Amino acid sequence: MEDVRKAMENIASHVLKVARNLNEEEVKKFLEILLSAHEKRHKVMVVGAGRSALVAKSFAMRLMHLGFTVYVMGETITPSVNKRDVIIAVSGSGRTQIVVSVASAAKRMGATIVAITSFPDSPLGRISDLIVRIPGRTKIAREIDYFARQVLGQYEPLAPLGTLFEDSALIFFDGVITALMNILGVSEDEMRDRHANVEYIG
Amino acid sequence: MEDVRKAMENIASHVLKVARNLNEEEVKKFLEILLSAHEKRHKVMVVGAGRSALVAKSFAMRLMHLGFTVYVMGETITPSVNKRDVIIAVSGSGRTQIVVSVASAAKRMGATIVAITSFPDSPLGRISDLIVRIPGRTKIAREIDYFARQVLGQYEPLAPLGTLFEDSALIFFDGVITALMNILGVSEDEMRDRHANVEYIG
Amino acid sequence: MEDVRKAMENIASHVLKVARNLNEEEVKKFLEILLSAHEKRHKVMVVGAGRSALVAKSFAMRLMHLGFTVYVMGETITPSVNKRDVIIAVSGSGRTQIVVSVASAAKRMGATIVAITSFPDSPLGRISDLIVRIPGRTKIAREIDYFARQVLGQYEPLAPLGTLFEDSALIFFDGVITALMNILGVSEDEMRDRHANVEYIG
Amino acid sequence: MEDVRKAMENIASHVLKVARNLNEEEVKKFLEILLSAHEKRHKVMVVGAGRSALVAKSFAMRLMHLGFTVYVMGETITPSVNKRDVIIAVSGSGRTQIVVSVASAAKRMGATIVAITSFPDSPLGRISDLIVRIPGRTKIAREIDYFARQVLGQYEPLAPLGTLFEDSALIFFDGVITALMNILGVSEDEMRDRHANVEYIG
Repeated sequence: MEDVRKAMENIASHVLKVARNLNEEEVKKFLEILLSAHEKRHKVMVVGAGRSALVAKSFAMRLMHLGFTVYVMGETITPSVNKRDVIIAVSGSGRTQIVVSVASAAKRMGATIVAITSFPDSPLGRISDLIVRIPGRTKIAREIDYFARQVLGQYEPLAPLGTLFEDSALIFFDGVITALMNILGVSEDEMRDRHANVEYIG
Repeated sequence: MEDVRKAMENIASHVLKVARNLNEEEVKKFLEILLSAHEKRHKVMVVGAGRSALVAKSFAMRLMHLGFTVYVMGETITPSVNKRDVIIAVSGSGRTQIVVSVASAAKRMGATIVAITSFPDSPLGRISDLIVRIPGRTKIAREIDYFARQVLGQYEPLAPLGTLFEDSALIFFDGVITALMNILGVSEDEMRDRHANVEYIG
Repeated sequence: MEDVRKAMENIASHVLKVARNLNEEEVKKFLEILLSAHEKRHKVMVVGAGRSALVAKSFAMRLMHLGFTVYVMGETITPSVNKRDVIIAVSGSGRTQIVVSVASAAKRMGATIVAITSFPDSPLGRISDLIVRIPGRTKIAREIDYFARQVLGQYEPLAPLGTLFEDSALIFFDGVITALMNILGVSEDEMRDRHANVEYIG
Repeated sequence: MEDVRKAMENIASHVLKVARNLNEEEVKKFLEILLSAHEKRHKVMVVGAGRSALVAKSFAMRLMHLGFTVYVMGETITPSVNKRDVIIAVSGSGRTQIVVSVASAAKRMGATIVAITSFPDSPLGRISDLIVRIPGRTKIAREIDYFARQVLGQYEPLAPLGTLFEDSALIFFDGVITALMNILGVSEDEMRDRHANVEYIG
């Protein structure tokens, strides 16, 4: 039980740190790209693998609630990519092979690529038009983890694998949604109206 | 940009509050149910709708990394439910029709139902064997929101719709994963070994 | 090996029989409803469970290639249903609970419900505005199966569970796509242009 | 209406031709690989893109009904690939980039790769341990189509894009299921018992 609380506090503190250290220029550009796609009714397409895909889908659902034309790579009715589209690629490491390969293919079609990643200097970062940095477990943290493991044996981090990046990216995206609501003047009621009113799971 | 930061801080503060107010008895019981399913190799099955489904899937993926026999309701290879199974139903309101209907059907098969919800006194809560309460926007917050909207017109909350519940539930589940790692003595390396090594999106 | 061939021939013969016995009035109405949705850019939304969901998605993908505004119930960016929408519900038995419940909810929103089913006199059939009958294993076949099982012991049908319905429904939908191509004058090249050009799996 | 019927007959005739021309050696090997995975409880993992992914999922669901340990690449709880696993890759052209890339990665892990394709001499075919050929629209048909288009202008084939391959592959897989039922002595009732008894869509 104490573990659960401590891990949650650890993640929430990380999110607070991410919020305080957001790069103003990056976020401003990201909002501009999204607002332009909204205004011109260009497609926004999200892509990720594993838990980052789930984070990307959570963002896509809210963009739909705000009236965007938005698609998830890999779902049934996702159409072809063209040069007016914006691709939002989510990968903590920036080296998830399939995400890099989708982003590269979309780039060849002339689309605008936005990378949400901890590593600007990564295969994904290098092909992107805009990088929004969301730190995950830092390199130093990894080295401390490694050192601790050597010394302490059983030591494990409070948030395994990509957890810190994924949870921070989700909450960053939710912050972006709030900003878009305010800028676009979309009310929560309008969002609720666009929200699926015929419930299903899946 | 300031909006993004403020909304992120708002969500992270909410998560911290949720962490501090977790009900010890509920969380202990939840861990016991999970550990018993792990030990006996019984199935754990998660279900949710909309963004809560994505949160449920994030948890299911990590349970798989820990060696659980786990399935997502609605995916291709999910088998039938039987009385030894544990169903984890995620619904902030506790009244998402499809989730209630799946949980009810599973209850009729004799499965153990765990509700992750803000509202214990809801259709989902009432049929569950265990309720873990994760507060979302509180009733008081809703009334303040409503009042503010009447008075201020354009006023909108910092986190629309189910955001506070969904993000808190995700981070609560991640806390549970950390606790399970420690109790089961599963290392991050073992989790990485079970993690999909052939990447794909979807 | 002989089993594989015989089962394939059995299924293909069933499809031929289904093709020859299509109800002209039902198919004509179905085409009219689809063409009207296409012309007015109203949403077409498909729903099914299990293998019928996969058949419904195959149809949705082709409708997208033809330029329809089409969604799959349960996918991330599926918006709310309204009275102008067409719901295509696929269920062999017509009693798949979740499909009936989605169709009922959509009907309450005023949408037009089309049932693709073997059983017009079923819960799904009864709430639908149009029924297109696609026979699966007939009642007589089931009785022969049952009789054969009593007498022959190990006897099993050549196509278990809903196979005959599902495969026939898929090919019926593909026939509808061909008809729509001709009526709308959409070429295969145009369809290929709309087809996802950035490949992914999922 | 006549179009619908003619297109269905065209597809069903193609399936019959595919059934009669199955390569006995290929199908026998495929059954052996599947039976061996079943006996040793090794994982079978399916992969495809677009409509071929839906066909692969339909097969995976039935393998689950037969008691196989089976996963779909890209779903939430799909674990890592190892050398004992069997990968079934479905691609008509044999050059769907993502499928080739997943199959290559799995091959590097030492898994057995089975290609279901119309083109043995393709990137997918070349890396596979076993190829099962399922013809789609033949090259000659394509040339006739092309010629007809030049001469007739509006001419379009009766089954656009990958339809003939996809529908034939689905029915081939259903034939394989029937053969496996007979060999393994699994009854339809046992399959029904494993079938999801808590319905959902998605």
